[in-house]
Amino acid sequence: MPAGMTTILPHVAMQVRRLEGILLTQLSRWGYDEIILPTFEYLDVLAPGLEQDLIEKCYQFADRTTGRILLLRPDATAQIARTVAMGMINRQIPLRLSYRTSVFRYEPEHAGRDREIFQVGAELIGRDDGAADAEIIALMAECLKQVGLRAFKVSLGHVGFFKGLLARTGMSAEGRKRAEEAAARKDLPRLEEILASERVPPAQARAILEAPGLYGGDEVLNRGRKLAGRDRTLHSTLDRLTHVYQLLESAGLGGCLLLDLGEFRGFEYYDGLVFDVFADGVGCELGGGGRYDHLIGRFGRDLPSTGFAVDVDRLFRALNRVDIVGESSQPGPDYVVCAPIHLSQRLFQLTSLLRARGCRVVHGEGRPRPVETIQAAVEEARRYQATAALVLGAPGLSADEVLLIESFSSGPAAKRSGKRRSRAHSVKRVKIQALADWAGGTTNS
Amino acid sequence: MPAGMTTILPHVAMQVRRLEGILLTQLSRWGYDEIILPTFEYLDVLAPGLEQDLIEKCYQFADRTTGRILLLRPDATAQIARTVAMGMINRQIPLRLSYRTSVFRYEPEHAGRDREIFQVGAELIGRDDGAADAEIIALMAECLKQVGLRAFKVSLGHVGFFKGLLARTGMSAEGRKRAEEAAARKDLPRLEEILASERVPPAQARAILEAPGLYGGDEVLNRGRKLAGRDRTLHSTLDRLTHVYQLLESAGLGGCLLLDLGEFRGFEYYDGLVFDVFADGVGCELGGGGRYDHLIGRFGRDLPSTGFAVDVDRLFRALNRVDIVGESSQPGPDYVVCAPIHLSQRLFQLTSLLRARGCRVVHGEGRPRPVETIQAAVEEARRYQATAALVLGAPGLSADEVLLIESFSSGPAAKRSGKRRSRAHSVKRVKIQALADWAGGTTNS
Repeated sequence: MPAGMTTILPHVAMQVRRLEGILLTQLSRWGYDEIILPTFEYLDVLAPGLEQDLIEKCYQFADRTTGRILLLRPDATAQIARTVAMGMINRQIPLRLSYRTSVFRYEPEHAGRDREIFQVGAELIGRDDGAADAEIIALMAECLKQVGLRAFKVSLGHVGFFKGLLARTGMSAEGRKRAEEAAARKDLPRLEEILASERVPPAQARAILEAPGLYGGDEVLNRGRKLAGRDRTLHSTLDRLTHVYQLLESAGLGGCLLLDLGEFRGFEYYDGLVFDVFADGVGCELGGGGRYDHLIGRFGRDLPSTGFAVDVDRLFRALNRVDIVGESSQPGPDYVVCAPIHLSQRLFQLTSLLRARGCRVVHGEGRPRPVETIQAAVEEARRYQATAALVLGAPGLSADEVLLIESFSSGPAAKRSGKRRSRAHSVKRVKIQALADWAGGTTNS
Repeated sequence: MPAGMTTILPHVAMQVRRLEGILLTQLSRWGYDEIILPTFEYLDVLAPGLEQDLIEKCYQFADRTTGRILLLRPDATAQIARTVAMGMINRQIPLRLSYRTSVFRYEPEHAGRDREIFQVGAELIGRDDGAADAEIIALMAECLKQVGLRAFKVSLGHVGFFKGLLARTGMSAEGRKRAEEAAARKDLPRLEEILASERVPPAQARAILEAPGLYGGDEVLNRGRKLAGRDRTLHSTLDRLTHVYQLLESAGLGGCLLLDLGEFRGFEYYDGLVFDVFADGVGCELGGGGRYDHLIGRFGRDLPSTGFAVDVDRLFRALNRVDIVGESSQPGPDYVVCAPIHLSQRLFQLTSLLRARGCRVVHGEGRPRPVETIQAAVEEARRYQATAALVLGAPGLSADEVLLIESFSSGPAAKRSGKRRSRAHSVKRVKIQALADWAGGTTNS
């Protein structure tokens, strides 16, 4: 098994799917419709949306049919931008799209399932206002609350602020790029070196060196105003941050907001308000996103847009840590039904009848003899956490009867601890017709 | 976009996900737990489960980290067999597993999304009895009924029957292989040539040439008995077919069964009862499966197993053809809420309040002036098929009031036909508190 690729076994898979389901339901309730993206694409088609660093982390291979290079999707946003530009451009704007998908990247340094990263995300396409920025962030926060995450922080920044500080120095483009990278890593000594080698005047250098440390509450905005001086571009980024911050406070999210004037997302297509989300006790971000007003334009017509993605595996780990999704509430089947082998046809008749009445039914494995069949039924019913076992052809039963065995002390808690497996069952003979009538009247399928 | 790879846009994506959801729910009700498989694996690890023909259809690439060859999953069953042998061998048997996944194959000759094939399937692992064969087939049939497919046929065969006819001739292994391939294509002239070149005695050759044409009702079994003569192996394959056929009749599936003594599935790991499913009017099979008692053994310990997979795209096309899933029943949002831009904060307060009361709410785009905002709200509400539009800050409203606009003639039918867009709305002023109380009392989230 390649490092970073794992099979997710049933107990965990069920919870991952539940998480996904809650997230997608929430997105749908806010008007976001799911889109399903192909797993691979031609590199030359998608490349305008990918920076070189990311392309180097991609899984690539030659298409045997055409000889062109294919790559496994490394990023959903670029693929959606390509889709919108090429196939949905005539749709009404704004578009609200959601997705659940995997992205694939070489990330050998990390542990876990990090070559194939499950993501759920949303894009709001065709809106350039602060209310759109705030909607995407409020939606992400609502998604996290809905899955049960209580303690998380969203850090808001604006890529234009730090870029603006660099721009007014007259530094070389290459120097600015290196300075951004150092700031993203909060590597101040390196940043200082770069500024010195680019001969940035001391006052401007001090402002640039201060910015990566500016995070916290709204006092950060005041300090930012000071650093901005009279630069209107810098003030406009702070205006947008202030506006979105206020909208999110209005949405009741004030308690989980942080401002970070040194904020950078990993993708260079972000060109406006950006954000990350962190949960208490998890070292890396659970997700994030931001505004990309010129990404779709690289594939055709510009459409101002914003979006977010959440890393489902990290979210899942954060939830396990706070022990919220730990408990599964999925019910076991209603019945495990067994019959001795020579009565298999009656077994299929009975299970069809019960299923037609809405019951959840598992076929137990028949044994040659009735007594063994009863034992097998009880064992399988316990294992599947079924409400009851039904056994056909048990000694003393007539053809229209079945043995109904109830009360297994095998709820989820007992199952986990392995303790207290009571052997006390309630056993009774029941007419098949009565059982079917009862199922038809009460089972809520 | 590579041929055979398409993005699935929202309207269709919603229906594909609904289909998947119904299928997975049904599998869960029968006791099958979902497993999530990695998208790629090392070729050398998975190769024991793949025949050479399939490996040649795979997407392969070198792992930059290790230099080993990776391949995109071409088949879920082989991957599950590998997983069970390597990671789940100590679990209680039988295992009931389900999956929803894509498989990837070069199939340049077909149209549509056939390089990335969506599948939903199930495996019943650790049971070798006819009741297990019948369970898997009954489960597949139930899945198809649940999604609304009415007219379909399941053809049952047993790979042991035709192989047995060949085996008793003393033909070369290579000749048998070529004969099987010709029979799978129902290419009788070619089959006759092969038999002649292998000097198969005329009586045996006649039986072999008759088998691929033997399909229909249970009269096929009688004719098969005649061809089997005194060969006990051949009779035992017919005994199994008869038994499973009877069990499926007991489950009420008699009407959709066909027997096919020339039946072959595409994968050579099948070694027992096999089946295909076809819908009326669709030229290719929607899915199928069969028994693979020795596949898991190639990765470790042998475990007799059976399973099925359904091609979700083909199923979707079959359903569209009979026009059953065509109608979407997903409700639109309760409200599209708009405010003039300067009231954005009140917009976020109101939408938070309504969402907390269980409403589905879409943020409309604010305009600078109130009158434009009302128009925008009505347009967006119609587009999202919302129950009502709410507008803050409309002329004459006090701060604790909102304009409630109802009655858009934009139900799904009107939407589709494009006709009859009545402009008649009911417009009234409502206290925000009254709206919230009403939402809290009646909205069923």
